[in-house]
Amino acid sequence: MSNAEIFLWEFLGTATLALLGCGVVANVVLRKTLGHNGGWLLINIGWGFGVFAGASIAAPSGAHINPAVTIGLAAADKLAWDKVPVYMTAQVVGAFVGAVVAYLAYKLQFDTHDDLANTRGIFCTGPTVDRKLWNTLTEIVGTFVLVFWILLSPGAQAGPDGVPQFGNSALGYAAVAFIVIGIGASLGGPTGYAINPARDLGPRIAYALLPIRGKGSAEWAYSWVPIVGPLVGGALAGLLFLALPTP
Amino acid sequence: MSNAEIFLWEFLGTATLALLGCGVVANVVLRKTLGHNGGWLLINIGWGFGVFAGASIAAPSGAHINPAVTIGLAAADKLAWDKVPVYMTAQVVGAFVGAVVAYLAYKLQFDTHDDLANTRGIFCTGPTVDRKLWNTLTEIVGTFVLVFWILLSPGAQAGPDGVPQFGNSALGYAAVAFIVIGIGASLGGPTGYAINPARDLGPRIAYALLPIRGKGSAEWAYSWVPIVGPLVGGALAGLLFLALPTP
Amino acid sequence: MSNAEIFLWEFLGTATLALLGCGVVANVVLRKTLGHNGGWLLINIGWGFGVFAGASIAAPSGAHINPAVTIGLAAADKLAWDKVPVYMTAQVVGAFVGAVVAYLAYKLQFDTHDDLANTRGIFCTGPTVDRKLWNTLTEIVGTFVLVFWILLSPGAQAGPDGVPQFGNSALGYAAVAFIVIGIGASLGGPTGYAINPARDLGPRIAYALLPIRGKGSAEWAYSWVPIVGPLVGGALAGLLFLALPTP
Amino acid sequence: MSNAEIFLWEFLGTATLALLGCGVVANVVLRKTLGHNGGWLLINIGWGFGVFAGASIAAPSGAHINPAVTIGLAAADKLAWDKVPVYMTAQVVGAFVGAVVAYLAYKLQFDTHDDLANTRGIFCTGPTVDRKLWNTLTEIVGTFVLVFWILLSPGAQAGPDGVPQFGNSALGYAAVAFIVIGIGASLGGPTGYAINPARDLGPRIAYALLPIRGKGSAEWAYSWVPIVGPLVGGALAGLLFLALPTP
Repeated sequence: MSNAEIFLWEFLGTATLALLGCGVVANVVLRKTLGHNGGWLLINIGWGFGVFAGASIAAPSGAHINPAVTIGLAAADKLAWDKVPVYMTAQVVGAFVGAVVAYLAYKLQFDTHDDLANTRGIFCTGPTVDRKLWNTLTEIVGTFVLVFWILLSPGAQAGPDGVPQFGNSALGYAAVAFIVIGIGASLGGPTGYAINPARDLGPRIAYALLPIRGKGSAEWAYSWVPIVGPLVGGALAGLLFLALPTP
Repeated sequence: MSNAEIFLWEFLGTATLALLGCGVVANVVLRKTLGHNGGWLLINIGWGFGVFAGASIAAPSGAHINPAVTIGLAAADKLAWDKVPVYMTAQVVGAFVGAVVAYLAYKLQFDTHDDLANTRGIFCTGPTVDRKLWNTLTEIVGTFVLVFWILLSPGAQAGPDGVPQFGNSALGYAAVAFIVIGIGASLGGPTGYAINPARDLGPRIAYALLPIRGKGSAEWAYSWVPIVGPLVGGALAGLLFLALPTP
Repeated sequence: MSNAEIFLWEFLGTATLALLGCGVVANVVLRKTLGHNGGWLLINIGWGFGVFAGASIAAPSGAHINPAVTIGLAAADKLAWDKVPVYMTAQVVGAFVGAVVAYLAYKLQFDTHDDLANTRGIFCTGPTVDRKLWNTLTEIVGTFVLVFWILLSPGAQAGPDGVPQFGNSALGYAAVAFIVIGIGASLGGPTGYAINPARDLGPRIAYALLPIRGKGSAEWAYSWVPIVGPLVGGALAGLLFLALPTP
Repeated sequence: MSNAEIFLWEFLGTATLALLGCGVVANVVLRKTLGHNGGWLLINIGWGFGVFAGASIAAPSGAHINPAVTIGLAAADKLAWDKVPVYMTAQVVGAFVGAVVAYLAYKLQFDTHDDLANTRGIFCTGPTVDRKLWNTLTEIVGTFVLVFWILLSPGAQAGPDGVPQFGNSALGYAAVAFIVIGIGASLGGPTGYAINPARDLGPRIAYALLPIRGKGSAEWAYSWVPIVGPLVGGALAGLLFLALPTP
């Protein structure tokens, strides 16, 4: 598959992921929505099925839609390293665009929101207790589970480019939704489970650039945590996979 | 497949969808029910599995049960344009009948409801902030995701009439439920996610005609938004699909 | 398959269904449980996956575990009428035993419950507004959706005895869970969605017989509604299926 | 498969299960998390998809990740008894390690928790009413359903070692998630549904050893209940399966 095609599918898939992901947090956080105060499970389900939608759309390129998955596959010798930059660039750009569209879909709700301090969380993650090394560890753990599961899952056969595929049924990618819902429910409590650098960085840039009413800082001081943590977690999963016997 | 058969299956499927969809909102809104105040996730799940039920029943005709899907498939050259009117007519009539049956199933609860102003939302959607162009944009975005996903989903193979199918297992259509739950959780906050003109128009007519105790206006002034938005979103998805390289 | 084997599998499957179904209501209703006040969605999910468990176990006999399914299949010419009594007897006996086991699993919670009036709902259904003909209609509608979906679902192929099967994968019967969760969310509000005469009658007998602390009446005056409604709904679904063209 | 490989896969799978399982309870119990007070359904879903993740990872060894499953398979003549110790040892060690990692992922939240008495429940189960024989019965019932379903499920074919497999798709193990969510919703109310001796014992040891701020007793007096109950329930399921006719 050409780099242009990889870029296209990863862009479309990650944009869909960020659109639905940022959308569900907007729905829960903003006041004039039907899902206001809908709870953590609703957020988990929105992100989970956002991954489902995005991964289905990005199936032709292997449905990474996450730099941590890309680096994990490369570390596991399932993806050529020279493909990594095009995947990652497309993912960050896609997540940025998805977040912008989510903003537009909730434009009226942003404009009428009366608690101006808390809209950053719609776009990017932050810790409940700010100690960045521990926060990074939490992101490593959550991402490790995601990528290790992808590599070992019985359904993840190698596709035409050596990229794992989840089969050719619409339902196949629901497995990824379930794992993401599970990780969010179980390991999302401390840091909001970025587990995907593009999902955090792209929307954080969108938050910084968009004319959001009463917005605050984009908290760039924290922004490296949801980049480094997931990349380390994904790479560790790929390396451990390499070291394991063939199942 | 004959137009009569298309009408039959689309009618049955969309009626089932509207029955379960209006039913879950009745369950959450009306006071003397077991699901009263059940929350947004319950509503998402009721609509999602309502689509699952309706799409499974309408599988012989391609399981559109939504004019936005029909127009998207036509725009993507997967459905002959002369089939569009029969699909759409059946869908609106079906959604009307489904809403009437939902009313009958909750007849006692309508009759004993003591907050008379808020029953319209059981039948049709409305915005939390009324600015119709922005509301239309929100409906475009949500419907685009739905139809774009259907067109690109690995499981949506072309059926006998060129209509996408979700395979021949009962579970296949659960994929559609998951995408609808996701869109509802993530993009349903501002306008209640019609994302289906028939789902909104048919029950709105039912609300206008049924002898519902203490009912208010059917808000016809808003009614074009959940028609135009989804049709535009579906058509855009179809056109973009045409412009993409073959996956 | 012999009548004894039909009895065995239907008994085991319906007992499992009633065990999990009555169990989830006990968990939500009784005070000294971890799921107390867990909400309607939790109840829907408990019953839905209870059907999943029970149907998987009763797969050899066609996974009816519900007299309304049995009568619907017979009405649709997919089951010999002389098999109907053995199916139904096994289902009622199974549901009775399952309810007894659920009582034993929650014995300590029954004994320490301090709101003695409301334990009947753990075992059997009741209306939020008591007008039996309308209640019956609600049960007809919910059961019709269940049985009509089973008959038309793409996955319901005819098994060795002409009994529909949901394929040979563990996940196949999850489709039934989703439809039951959907019906509960959407149509369970007025009467608690028996949609299964055995599920209501067996546990109601158990409630009448068990030495439950401070128990009240078993409300036999209502007991015909969740028997007649589901049987009528199931039969109507079977008859309509017969009248439809082959999909 | 060699004993070393069995140990490896069961260790990895059970560690993942305990990591996600203990994680979701930490998310709900601890104060400074995003999922605080998330409710019983969130806990059920975290454990359910934790089993999904762990079972997928342990697929090469048959995905037991639970001594009650191991003993049930042995009792049903589907596993050689001499394999039982290696399975069980790996499971307990894995669950211990998973709980330690969950502690590390929530380290900051443990350190800032201000209700010191209730952290044991993050690691291991306890009864809402402490009467150990009845508690044991509840655990027997829940585990029986789990193992009986595994043995009878249409998808549980015998794998290369005579160990049941759930097919070769990523989604296959979602069936196990659904059954575990169902058992948790329905039968988890009285004792917190260990239904897995390793899941309880490993994390209990971790609780006893870890330097958790303000921790209390590990309640060793209760610890035999979630060991004996599940083992008895699993063995009974295996024995009943043996006594049944071939489906």
